[in-house]
Amino acid sequence: MNNYVYHNPGKIIFGRGCEQSIGEEIARYAKRCLIVLGGPFIKENGLYDRVAASLEEAGVAYFDLENIVPNPRLAQVYEGIELCRQHEIGFVLAIGGGSAIDTAKSVAAGVRAEGDIWDYFGTFTKFLTDALPCGVLLTLPATGSESSNCAVLTNEATGLKRSLFSDHIIPRFAALNPELSCSLPPYQTACGSADILAHLMEAYFTATDHVDLTDRLLEAAMQTVIHYAPLALRYPHDYDVRAELYQAANITNNGMLMAGRLGDWGSHNIEHEISGIYDIAHGAGLAVVFPAWMRYVWRRKPERFVQFARRVFRVDYAPGQEEWAVEAGIARLEAFYRELGLPTRLAEAGIDGSRIQEMADNAMIGVEAVGMSFPLQAEDVRRILELAR
Amino acid sequence: MNNYVYHNPGKIIFGRGCEQSIGEEIARYAKRCLIVLGGPFIKENGLYDRVAASLEEAGVAYFDLENIVPNPRLAQVYEGIELCRQHEIGFVLAIGGGSAIDTAKSVAAGVRAEGDIWDYFGTFTKFLTDALPCGVLLTLPATGSESSNCAVLTNEATGLKRSLFSDHIIPRFAALNPELSCSLPPYQTACGSADILAHLMEAYFTATDHVDLTDRLLEAAMQTVIHYAPLALRYPHDYDVRAELYQAANITNNGMLMAGRLGDWGSHNIEHEISGIYDIAHGAGLAVVFPAWMRYVWRRKPERFVQFARRVFRVDYAPGQEEWAVEAGIARLEAFYRELGLPTRLAEAGIDGSRIQEMADNAMIGVEAVGMSFPLQAEDVRRILELAR
Repeated sequence: MNNYVYHNPGKIIFGRGCEQSIGEEIARYAKRCLIVLGGPFIKENGLYDRVAASLEEAGVAYFDLENIVPNPRLAQVYEGIELCRQHEIGFVLAIGGGSAIDTAKSVAAGVRAEGDIWDYFGTFTKFLTDALPCGVLLTLPATGSESSNCAVLTNEATGLKRSLFSDHIIPRFAALNPELSCSLPPYQTACGSADILAHLMEAYFTATDHVDLTDRLLEAAMQTVIHYAPLALRYPHDYDVRAELYQAANITNNGMLMAGRLGDWGSHNIEHEISGIYDIAHGAGLAVVFPAWMRYVWRRKPERFVQFARRVFRVDYAPGQEEWAVEAGIARLEAFYRELGLPTRLAEAGIDGSRIQEMADNAMIGVEAVGMSFPLQAEDVRRILELAR
Repeated sequence: MNNYVYHNPGKIIFGRGCEQSIGEEIARYAKRCLIVLGGPFIKENGLYDRVAASLEEAGVAYFDLENIVPNPRLAQVYEGIELCRQHEIGFVLAIGGGSAIDTAKSVAAGVRAEGDIWDYFGTFTKFLTDALPCGVLLTLPATGSESSNCAVLTNEATGLKRSLFSDHIIPRFAALNPELSCSLPPYQTACGSADILAHLMEAYFTATDHVDLTDRLLEAAMQTVIHYAPLALRYPHDYDVRAELYQAANITNNGMLMAGRLGDWGSHNIEHEISGIYDIAHGAGLAVVFPAWMRYVWRRKPERFVQFARRVFRVDYAPGQEEWAVEAGIARLEAFYRELGLPTRLAEAGIDGSRIQEMADNAMIGVEAVGMSFPLQAEDVRRILELAR
């Protein structure tokens, strides 16, 4: 186990009706807030009005940044920063999923950053020293960004998708009402669930030894997602089913399950190259990348991939059958993705192989390797993408 | 799943040498601190000197409150409060296990409380509105108090052991160096491990339905304790083994594994009556109470006790054999306690049945029932203690 510091002061407000406390929460920090809206449905289904009523009751004025797109763009962040400066806004509230949250965090950071906020993305040389406080009302459990110290943006000028890390952008509160996900389209539920599972796998596939408690916690969360994601497709309006996915997504990236271990995140980086170019849903891209990544890297630390098969997917095997067990685990993972209606190959996502080399080269821009526990070079990434065709 | 608010801003500093950062951490809050010492070994083995050096380097003056006993006493808390007032102390640091921590928290609360701090214990009518900041350097992983909002004290005048709950007493930091537990006597390691497991069971045996993620997280932590506690007895100086127990103890009471569910804590209340009178180690008392408690209450929610047997202790059974499965689970729990050298009956702890009625009556003082998910009256407690003879 590695030495670590864990510190996540974010407040979680979980359950039906929690959106009614948002005004009170924000009033602790500021009298004017920017609302970053993840999609038009938020105004159409009455959610926006309930939040607005809560803000008005608490005496908080609000301004909107609307129509944030999946794989959120830098241009909208600049727009939000400008709005904050213009209206002297002191708090940024995201309503939506990961795209709205990451836009809100980037705006909050950008208002207080020196120079261009994009310079802080994908680099480990320039660090934030401050940010506006931000908060979240979640409508799609997926990225866990509502409790993480990370934001992911696409620079539409270059097609590069990069991450920003800073404890200053951990949301001060995350309001989690599972009811809000009951009307999600099935494909979004599926992609969100694939994203939760992928984050858990990124932490699970570590080169760090002696991390058994966090292994088991991660397995617990993975089994929950694997059990409840198909149920959410079958019973979309079941609160208890949605609540499991909300809670699982939320704990995934708050740092506790990753304490003391170095995750990998190579599959995420590779997926970012796919969705940077093709605008595929992040969760669908991960369902394509992960099986191929596992097939490519498992020999670097077989026991970890065998344990995944045995403990998460209950693959049984006799001594000497470890290679078969790893492949059986990957096959069961693919079966899970297919049960959710997700692609497991690039071709199934409508992506041909013509830009594989470009994606492999892009993945290396600004980094010495792709992935932290199992570092890859461009040629490795190319081979993984070939395996995923 | 119940609605909940989770908010634990405590910072965890985990790993070898973490005690060296204590001065820097405390200097954020105050220039004078009280050190609450859990036992003479802290000064004898050089730990105190390392902390003192760190405090001096950070310019923090310090005063000692020494020789805190297991099942800590109210009188020592009064003494600590007096020291704080006399020296205008702004921070309370515990070095030790649960007794030192709970004393430190009670002192921190008492300095700022209105009137007698004991009036805040065991009542749900009087609440703290403030407390001095406190922190922890842990030497015994057991209570999880280093990250909890709870302190437990014994009033030696009445023999009553009661709890104080307040978010104001969550330690601002907990420094966790597993090396510090390598020289623990085996019996303390055993009792500490039984305490960790008991806290997980108190949360696990809930009447709340639809809490599958937290069920699985609790199972993960329970399996870790069950696996590593015997290893810690066999290989006391193995850092990796000690680290698993440190981490498991720490997450147990930070609130995350209990989010959305009502625990029970009846077994703890019953054990407090035993250790209030007999001064038995808390963990040993829990090993006596829990099997008897389970045998008494399982029929109130059989599926939960069956799931415990199946998932935690891997008891297999056919439909119709659930009662057998529950008993098999309890038997395996008792076998685990015996493997640690702990008593599972009052007689094995040297306690006869002469004061059972008194303990049962004491358990009801100031409360309407013992236990929250499976509420008990005095006669139930008496029967459980009879089962435990």
